[in-house]
Amino acid sequence: MHIIVDLCVVPLGVGVSVSPYIVACEKILKAAGLKTNLHAYGTNIEGEWDTVFAAIKQCHETIHAMGAPRITTTIKLGSRTDRLQTMEDKIRSVQEKQ
Amino acid sequence: MHIIVDLCVVPLGVGVSVSPYIVACEKILKAAGLKTNLHAYGTNIEGEWDTVFAAIKQCHETIHAMGAPRITTTIKLGSRTDRLQTMEDKIRSVQEKQ
Amino acid sequence: MHIIVDLCVVPLGVGVSVSPYIVACEKILKAAGLKTNLHAYGTNIEGEWDTVFAAIKQCHETIHAMGAPRITTTIKLGSRTDRLQTMEDKIRSVQEKQ
Amino acid sequence: MHIIVDLCVVPLGVGVSVSPYIVACEKILKAAGLKTNLHAYGTNIEGEWDTVFAAIKQCHETIHAMGAPRITTTIKLGSRTDRLQTMEDKIRSVQEKQ
Repeated sequence: MHIIVDLCVVPLGVGVSVSPYIVACEKILKAAGLKTNLHAYGTNIEGEWDTVFAAIKQCHETIHAMGAPRITTTIKLGSRTDRLQTMEDKIRSVQEKQ
Repeated sequence: MHIIVDLCVVPLGVGVSVSPYIVACEKILKAAGLKTNLHAYGTNIEGEWDTVFAAIKQCHETIHAMGAPRITTTIKLGSRTDRLQTMEDKIRSVQEKQ
Repeated sequence: MHIIVDLCVVPLGVGVSVSPYIVACEKILKAAGLKTNLHAYGTNIEGEWDTVFAAIKQCHETIHAMGAPRITTTIKLGSRTDRLQTMEDKIRSVQEKQ
Repeated sequence: MHIIVDLCVVPLGVGVSVSPYIVACEKILKAAGLKTNLHAYGTNIEGEWDTVFAAIKQCHETIHAMGAPRITTTIKLGSRTDRLQTMEDKIRSVQEKQ
């Protein structure tokens, strides 16, 4: 199943600077061959269900291994069967009506 | 990895009554042996990572097969390595301080 | 506007134990006269838009005043014009179909 | 209070094509003078608490007036007191470590 995801990973118990953990997660997503786009409150991801969630699981494992005792993550996840839609399609469908 | 999840599945293109789809998803979560607790804006789930996400994938597949052409899902997901925490522990830790 | 909300407030930079901050927020919501229901990954809230968001703003102000330098909050928010729906209605509409 | 927000508004009961409603919401955010950045699963917003939430309320009112009987919205919301941080700062702090 092809999905578009928005991922926001928040390590707890490591202070207020969380960017080193986000960087580690970005590397995992890219190494998995996923299409990603970083924004100011998370990362858009596009790919197959199993690949996406295997990568997100690896993000949790890696961030714990880096020393974060607790992680809270927010995921938005869209799938559709009526047509294939890319991340660019979603943005364009809004922008061309503006 | 043991996780606590909050799941909110929203089928689109099927009108405003979405409860039949939520019911189908609740059945899948229970059939997977997961601990669940329904609330007014989603379902708390506790279990192992792979079991939880296999069940959520099955929810998407089933809701599409029921006729929903599009689904948007929101997931909150917590893991911790410092100690085992259940859904009841989380609620109790707040209630006993009130 | 009558709304049903799911609120999850996460203070950062205060270690892994966040329940004292959640307790402070629960008190603010109740003092505002809002209907609330605590679950394992947040709090359901029902009330008028302005009352709900004034209370959530007060939660942020209070948690910062308690010493948390950073807060990340997740909100789900539902409104409908076709009919009045309570938190209990939403749960019942799922449970009676099971 | 200065906040960074991620907003995802989903109208229900209007079929699978939701972009006209998102366009209306984007116009409201811009007319309110807010800094925004559209991505594939929502819109980043930066501004003062009261301005941001007045605009989001107006989005709900407008989308209902356009004919959507039900709306479910997801909001991520960050505030911090240790330093002022812009949306660009958040992205840069990740990108410069990659």
